[in-house]
Amino acid sequence: MAFTEGSPRVPGVEQITGFGDRLAERVAVRESQLVLGLDPDPARLWPAAIRRAQANGTVAVPPAMRAARAVAAHCALAIEAAGEQCVAVKLQVACFERLGAPGWSVLAETAARAREHGLLVIADAKRGDIGVTAAAYAQAFLDETPTPFGPVPGLGVDALTVNPLLGRDSLEPFTTAARGHGSGLFVLVRTSNPGAAEVQERALADGGSVSGALAALVDEIGFAGTGRSGLSDVGAVVGATAPDRLHALRERMPHAPFLLPGVGAQGGRVEELAPAFMCGPAGGLIAASRGIVAAHEQTGGDPAAAAAREAARIRDLAWRVAA
Amino acid sequence: MAFTEGSPRVPGVEQITGFGDRLAERVAVRESQLVLGLDPDPARLWPAAIRRAQANGTVAVPPAMRAARAVAAHCALAIEAAGEQCVAVKLQVACFERLGAPGWSVLAETAARAREHGLLVIADAKRGDIGVTAAAYAQAFLDETPTPFGPVPGLGVDALTVNPLLGRDSLEPFTTAARGHGSGLFVLVRTSNPGAAEVQERALADGGSVSGALAALVDEIGFAGTGRSGLSDVGAVVGATAPDRLHALRERMPHAPFLLPGVGAQGGRVEELAPAFMCGPAGGLIAASRGIVAAHEQTGGDPAAAAAREAARIRDLAWRVAA
Repeated sequence: MAFTEGSPRVPGVEQITGFGDRLAERVAVRESQLVLGLDPDPARLWPAAIRRAQANGTVAVPPAMRAARAVAAHCALAIEAAGEQCVAVKLQVACFERLGAPGWSVLAETAARAREHGLLVIADAKRGDIGVTAAAYAQAFLDETPTPFGPVPGLGVDALTVNPLLGRDSLEPFTTAARGHGSGLFVLVRTSNPGAAEVQERALADGGSVSGALAALVDEIGFAGTGRSGLSDVGAVVGATAPDRLHALRERMPHAPFLLPGVGAQGGRVEELAPAFMCGPAGGLIAASRGIVAAHEQTGGDPAAAAAREAARIRDLAWRVAA
Repeated sequence: MAFTEGSPRVPGVEQITGFGDRLAERVAVRESQLVLGLDPDPARLWPAAIRRAQANGTVAVPPAMRAARAVAAHCALAIEAAGEQCVAVKLQVACFERLGAPGWSVLAETAARAREHGLLVIADAKRGDIGVTAAAYAQAFLDETPTPFGPVPGLGVDALTVNPLLGRDSLEPFTTAARGHGSGLFVLVRTSNPGAAEVQERALADGGSVSGALAALVDEIGFAGTGRSGLSDVGAVVGATAPDRLHALRERMPHAPFLLPGVGAQGGRVEELAPAFMCGPAGGLIAASRGIVAAHEQTGGDPAAAAAREAARIRDLAWRVAA
C-alpha cells in the first residue's frame, strides 16, 4: 500500500495514491523505465546461485526445495547486480509455480527482496477468470483472503498482468482490489509472441481488430483510475515485437502505462518504442529478462557484471528514446 | 500417466492411451459425466472441515496453514460425499493459490485424494502465455521440471484449462506436454460468465465470431490427438449458460470433449446441453461446484448428505440427456 507523501490530507484519513501517479514518480526519481524480468529456469541459473544453494543444502533435502533455494539465490543476485538500473521487477509466476509450494514461498521472498531495493513488483501471471474466481486471484496477488483463522495476506504486488478474454466483468474484481491498495493492472492487449496476431489481430466486422477492442476496454476501465500524472492504474501489455501497432494503440489508450516485453531475446528494439512515451517518461516500461540475466552468454565473463552492463545500456537507451 | 490395459503392445514399449480415449472409457465405466468442482472459499467451508482443522491445529499455527488444513479437510469430505457420483474433480487453482505455499501443497494433496477415489483430475487454471512460459506452466501442471538437483514433479493432472488469447504457438507446449502423458487440455472457447460475449462473441470481418475462430483452432490442434473413441485430447470450455451457442460449437469441434461449467449457481440447465453429447456420452463433462458443495444452503441438513443427493440428481439427469 502506498500513501501520498506530499499532498494535503484529511486528518485521520490516509489517501491512497493511485498506481499511475506512483509509477510516474518512481520513474522520475530513478530515471529508469527498465523492468528486470525474472523468469528463472533451474537449468540456467547463475553458477553462484547453485553454489549458494549447495552450501546451504544437503542431499536429504528434496529437489524442489533445493531448486527453490537456488532460484531464490539467483533472483537475489540478479536484483543486486541490475536492480539499481531498474524501476521494477517483473516476476514470471510460472517459473516459481513449477517448483510447487517451495516455489511459491520463493516468489514471495523475491518480491520482498525487490522491495528492499526500492523496486516496484509486477507479477506476470496473466490471470483471467469469471468474477468469483477473478476475486480469488485478486486476493492471492493484490489483497488478502478472509478466513475463520484470520486474514491470509496475498503477495501484495504493485501490479499484476491479466488476460481480458473473459470480458469486462472478469476484470472488475482485479480493478477493485488494485485500486484499494494503490496497485495497478497490465491487461494483455497485443502480446510479444510470434503467433500473437492469430487471435489478437483478427479483423472485426465493425472495424479494427481484437487488440483494438481490448485497447478500448482498457481505456474505458482505466478512466476512473487516471491520476494527476495523466497515467491510469490500468495499463496494457504491448509487445515490443510489434512496433508498427504501437502508435495506434497509444492513441486508443492515451492514459495507459504500457508494459513492453520482448526486447532482446525476442527481437524487440528499444529505438522503436517512442510512441509508448507520448504520455510521458513513465508511459512505457521496458521489460527485459533473458537479455539482462543471460547477457554473459553473449558477452562472456561474470554474469553479474554482464547483467549490470546490459541493464545500464538498455536503461540509458530507453531514457533517451523517451526524452 | 496412463497406459492401455487391453490393447496390443509392442514388447518393452508402453503405449500411452490418449486423453480422449481415457475419458470415454472412464465415463462409460462410472456412468457419469459429472465433474465435482472444488473452489473452496475459506469463509464458507463445511463446519466439519473447520472442526477437523481446529482439532489438529493450535493458535500458534499461522492463519494460512490453518486455513489450508481446513480447505484440505473440506475437499476431502466433499470428495468422500459426492465423488462416487462423479467421473472427475475440477480444482479451481485460484482458491488454493490465495493461501500461498500451504495452499499449493493442499492443491497437490487434493489431487492425490481425488485419484484415490478413481476420479480424473482437471486443474482449472486458465493459463496462457508465450511459448517459453507456457512450457513452464506445462511443467507445473502436466510434466516435471529438470533441475541440477533432480527433476521436480508437477501436479500431474489429467487435464488443464488453458486460455488461447495468445494464439496457437502459446498452446503448443501444453499440447506436447499433455500428449506425452495421456493428459488433455480444455481450451477456453465460450466461457460461462455474464460478460463472456463482450470479447468472445465479437463478430469477425470474415464471418463468425471470436469464439468461432477459437473453436476452429481447437479442432485443428486437436486433430492429431483424436483417439479410437472419436474424442480428442484437446477439449473446449463451453459455458452451460450459453446453450444457444452449443450446437454450432459442437459442429465446429466434432471431436472435442466439452467442459461445461455454469450449471446451478450460474444458471445453466442440464436439459439444454444435449448438443454436447452428439459425439458420445463423454462429449460433455458437466462441472458443478457450488451447486453440489453448497447444496445444503438451499435444502438445509447435513452438507455431505445434501451434496451426495444433488450430485446423484445431476448425474442421473445428465446421463438421460446424453442417452
